This record gives sequence, structure tokens and C-alpha cells, in this order.
Amino acid sequence: MRVADQYYRTIWVDEGQLPDVQIIDQRYLPHEFHIETISSYKQMAIAIKEMHLRGAGLIGVAGAFGVYLAYRDAFQANQPMVFVDGAITEILNTRPTAVNLKWAIDKVCPRVASGLTLEEKAHIALDAAKQLADHDAESCRLIGLHGLPLIEEISERKKGGVVNILTHCNAGWLAFTDYGSALSPIYLAHRKGIKLHVWVDETRPRNQGAALTTWELLNEGVPHTLIADNTGGHLMQNQMVDMVITGADRIAANGDTANKIGTYLKALAAHDNGIPFYVAAPTSTIDFALAEGLGKIPIEERSGNEVRYVRGLYNGNIVDMLICPENTPAVNYGFDITPARLISGFITEKGVVNNIKLLMNLNR
Amino acid sequence: MRVADQYYRTIWVDEGQLPDVQIIDQRYLPHEFHIETISSYKQMAIAIKEMHLRGAGLIGVAGAFGVYLAYRDAFQANQPMVFVDGAITEILNTRPTAVNLKWAIDKVCPRVASGLTLEEKAHIALDAAKQLADHDAESCRLIGLHGLPLIEEISERKKGGVVNILTHCNAGWLAFTDYGSALSPIYLAHRKGIKLHVWVDETRPRNQGAALTTWELLNEGVPHTLIADNTGGHLMQNQMVDMVITGADRIAANGDTANKIGTYLKALAAHDNGIPFYVAAPTSTIDFALAEGLGKIPIEERSGNEVRYVRGLYNGNIVDMLICPENTPAVNYGFDITPARLISGFITEKGVVNNIKLLMNLNR
Repeated sequence: MRVADQYYRTIWVDEGQLPDVQIIDQRYLPHEFHIETISSYKQMAIAIKEMHLRGAGLIGVAGAFGVYLAYRDAFQANQPMVFVDGAITEILNTRPTAVNLKWAIDKVCPRVASGLTLEEKAHIALDAAKQLADHDAESCRLIGLHGLPLIEEISERKKGGVVNILTHCNAGWLAFTDYGSALSPIYLAHRKGIKLHVWVDETRPRNQGAALTTWELLNEGVPHTLIADNTGGHLMQNQMVDMVITGADRIAANGDTANKIGTYLKALAAHDNGIPFYVAAPTSTIDFALAEGLGKIPIEERSGNEVRYVRGLYNGNIVDMLICPENTPAVNYGFDITPARLISGFITEKGVVNNIKLLMNLNR
Repeated sequence: MRVADQYYRTIWVDEGQLPDVQIIDQRYLPHEFHIETISSYKQMAIAIKEMHLRGAGLIGVAGAFGVYLAYRDAFQANQPMVFVDGAITEILNTRPTAVNLKWAIDKVCPRVASGLTLEEKAHIALDAAKQLADHDAESCRLIGLHGLPLIEEISERKKGGVVNILTHCNAGWLAFTDYGSALSPIYLAHRKGIKLHVWVDETRPRNQGAALTTWELLNEGVPHTLIADNTGGHLMQNQMVDMVITGADRIAANGDTANKIGTYLKALAAHDNGIPFYVAAPTSTIDFALAEGLGKIPIEERSGNEVRYVRGLYNGNIVDMLICPENTPAVNYGFDITPARLISGFITEKGVVNNIKLLMNLNR
């Protein structure tokens, strides 16, 4: 997608033999655009855990590149396979809620046959990670295609009037390799000339909406308005929202969906006001092994400092600022579970379904 | 209530003939404790509009003192009554959603008989404002008494286990003259030795929860934890909230309640999880003339800069920090309407009722 006038993915490797991995370091957005070079699995594990990058799909792809780097590290430092196994476990444990991390690593690891040299294994893991990145981007492109008719329908019903879409957190291209999930149909609709406007939840505590979604929409020229997370209910009560589209970090087999904390509240408000609420995600986000979500999907608890402090731009510098008394206790759950009963449908790369079981059949 | 070890009200006058009005300037809390001297009606109108003080009850009392200052200004500068009338209209228009402003001014103005000198009128208005402040404090004390049994009941049911109460925004003593509405029963229960813990919504965009409610609870020694506004639904889904108590800015005759933006979302979550949701407010907050709330109570729209910028402490200074791209459009609705169907009961100075009509009878 566009950054100013240049095309970027969120993660890539340059040409050459067993190259480093490059990522957009999202901690500086929207104020500064930084590219970080990742040279070891350790550095990738930190980048995932400390959220230099984030988002269900991107975490998965980054994990796959992390596996590649683990093999490269082992090859370069002449480490035994137990080093690689330990590295993979470490990467897997960086973020507990998103299932894509496990999914991606499970795709890469079996490709690396035993009996090869570490150098050969690193090459194979690199190829697998690159393929996964392409697959992730393609899935998101298809999510856009499948989601587009849902927006077109509302546009037609409103006789070409502006379609107002509310989204929570960032499920745009920054959350994947490219295109995004929730934002993919929006980008496509915008390019097709459909009049639309996006309500962007700021998404405390880390403000992925205020910092990332606004920045993406600005770069792509999509009309949008930033709102506090508290605002969506009021907008929905007053017919100012036509549909809600969010991403997902893990979807249970019954459709219960873990997504960024606060998603559940918006789903309740959409339901209370008869507004369609869609979850957009590649099928890699579905945890078919999990019968239901509530109490079953592990909810990541992050540092209370992310609540006590807000990051932003002051006097040209990016700083963290205290918003409460100094020693106020704070808790920081990263996700909540939206029960399937509140979800109108799932927009996936295989199509839109109202019931995850339909995808389970496709998956066989 | 306590600030460090001293007792304060939020608004007061010192001894003497026609004195200035003193207020706690809440814009600096929790980082600095400032008292502002208000010397003219104009300064009071700014203090209300720019939220040097805020909160349903306190706005009303401040409005009453503003009327006093309007008479004093007229007396000191030898202005005609039309000056006072214009001043009162100006004060009335500072904050459109809270009904207490109108209520308080309607209490003061009829007391000032025509035929008196401006000096006499100023004295009468001052006495009326002081009485209103006392009345506001006493109402809040009674709200505490009436709300206490609701907390005691849960404590007994939990066999003395910790009662977890979620609150939104600041409906503590800083929002009134003293005691508060939502926090009044909490303070009383805490003093009675009931084990409790308060979940404090940070309440973006102005962070009254993070800045004011935490500060109040800290001063009073009540256990509490700060959370992002997005978190309440997750806590309720996981049996971590026993009850919700919020304040109100205006209650329609059918019980529909305007309160700080985001209250509606918490009410939906409480309802979805079978958790009691109480609104605590003096009956002065009820607009008996308004049959219902949704679409009928005017919702204040404030500057988008309150969304784009967050205020906090950085390097020992209170600063405003940009959290989004520089020219991101933002809207800032101050309140939303919680439909009566989602409210378990209203805790007022006259008792707890499930139906506002019962209070209408008391009001006659």
C-alpha cells in the first residue's frame, strides 16, 4: 500500500543470500516512518512482543521469518538443532492470543526436512516465509473482493449516499503483509468510486486506530474521522453508522471472536441498533480446534504502563506521558471475546459466511 | 473530602462582604493542585465552558455563583439589569447537556426580588448560591446513604468478599460540591469497612476517570484499578464486576439518561451479563419536562482537539500531546443516552427507585 507515493509491504527481505528481514517499525507511526532491520530470531521475538509490528496476519508472517532467522542464526553460529527448537518456542510465546503465529510456524516447520544442512534449512525456511507473506497478501486482497458487495449493497440502498463504516483498532495493511482485513474491502470500494467514510476508534491503550488506521486512510485518501472509543454507541443510536467491520485475532469454531479489547462493546451496540457487524479475517485466523471462545481463548495481559502512559508527539519528539497519579494500579487486557451471536458474518478469502461451520467444510 | 490531609469542597467563598468565588481548577489534576479565584461572571462562564470545573452538580452550583457574580459585576460597574440578564443567558449556554445548570439558576433568580438595589440583589444571590451548594452536598451525602445497602447486599452475598464496582467518568465529589453521586455510596461503604474495589474507566477524551476519579480514590484510600474504556466488557464477561454505578447529566422523565460518552456501551455490557447497572444522581438532574431522552436531550459537541491531543505529565510539566496525524479530522460528542431499559435503578437523595415516575410523584 501507499506511503506518501511509494509502495510498501509491512515486512520484506532484500535481494541476496540469506538476507536480513526488514519491517516497518510501527511504534513511531504516524509521526515518523522507520524501517527496522531484523538480524536475528531474538530481535524478531522482541519486535513481535514489544509490538514494533502487530496485527493478526503480520504476527504470523513475522513468526515465519523468525523461524528462518533461527535457522540462519544456528547456521552462522554453528548451533545445534535444539537451539532452533528453543527459538521457535520463544517466538510462539511472544503473543498468546493470536492463533496466526502458531498457524504460520506450523506451515513453515514441516517444510524443513531433517537430514539437510543448517544452511539448506535456512534457505527452505526463507522460501516458506516468503510464500507465506505472499499468501497473506493474496488472502487480504480476496477479503477485499468478497467484502466489496456488502458495501456496494448499502451504497445502492442509500442511492449513492455516503456509506459510514466504523472500525476498531487497526486491521489494515499494517496488520498484515498488505491490503489488510477490515480495511481491504474499504480500500477497494474507495478505488471503485463508492462514497464512503470511516469512523476510526482511537483504540486505547495503544491507540492503533488513532496512530495507524488514520495514517493508512490518509495515505490512501479515504475520508475518515477519529473518535474516542466511547463514541461508537452514540453514533449508532443516531443512524450515523451503516456497518461495522473489524478484524480478528482468533476465531473459535463456533464463531466466537477474539479481537482487540473493546470490540465486544461495539458489537453489542451494533446489535442493539440493528447495524450489521462483520468480522474480516483470513481463514488462518480460525482455530478449528477450539469449540468456543469465551473462557477458552487465552487473553494476553500486557503492562499497566500502556494504560498509565500515552504515547504521542510533543514539541517534535515522540514521548510517553503520564495520565494518572504516579502509582495508580492499572490492568491491560489486550483482547476481548465477541460472541458469535453478535456477528452478522465473516468476510474471508474464501467468501462471506454467517456460520464458521461452513468454512470448516471448505477447509476439509 | 480529603486532599492529602485537608478537607475541601470543590467551590466556596471566603469570609467578607461580596467575596470572590474559589474553585479547584480541575484541569491540573491529578498532577498539580490549583485553586482559582473567580472574580467575575465572565470568568465563571469560561471556567464552566473550558471545564476548569465540571460535573453535573458542580456545574449547577457554579452557575448559581455565576449569577451572584453577575449581580456583583453590575453593582460594581453600575450596569443596568439588562447586563445581568445577558450574563445569565451566557452562563446558561456554557454547557448544553446538563440540566442542573438551568435548575440551579431557576432556583436563584426568583429569590432576587425586583425593587432592591444591585448590592442587595448581589447579597441575596450569594446567599442563594451558598444554600444551593449546601443542598448539593447534602443531596450527595443522602445518595451515599441510600446507595450503601446495594453494596452491602452484594458484600453479604459474597460472604464479605471484595465487591467490584465499575464506574465511568468522574461522578465523585469533584463533580459536585462534596461527596459525589456514584462515588458517594462507595466512600460510605469503604468507611464502614466493606471490602471493595473500583474499576476506573479512563474516560477518553478528557480522561476524567484517569485524572480525577483515581485521584479521589487515592486520597480516600479506596482500592481501585485504572482501565482503558475498552476493558469493561471483558471484565463483565469474566465475572470481575459485581455492579456498575455511574452519574448522570440529565435524566428524562422515562428514565433515559444522558451521561458521559461511553456510558451506554457499559450499560449494554452490564445488561448482556446480568450485572446491575445503577445511575446515581440528585433529583435536580431529572428533567421532568422531557418525556424521553434519545434524540431529545441536546448532546454537547466539543472540540476535536480533545480527541487529537491527550493531556498528561511529561518531564514534570503538564502538556498536550498529539496522538494522530496532524490534520486528522476528529469529532467529540460529550455524552450519550443510556435507555431506561438498561438501568437497574436510580440512586437519589430521596431513595432508590427503579422507575423515575415514582420520583415524579415524590416531586409533587
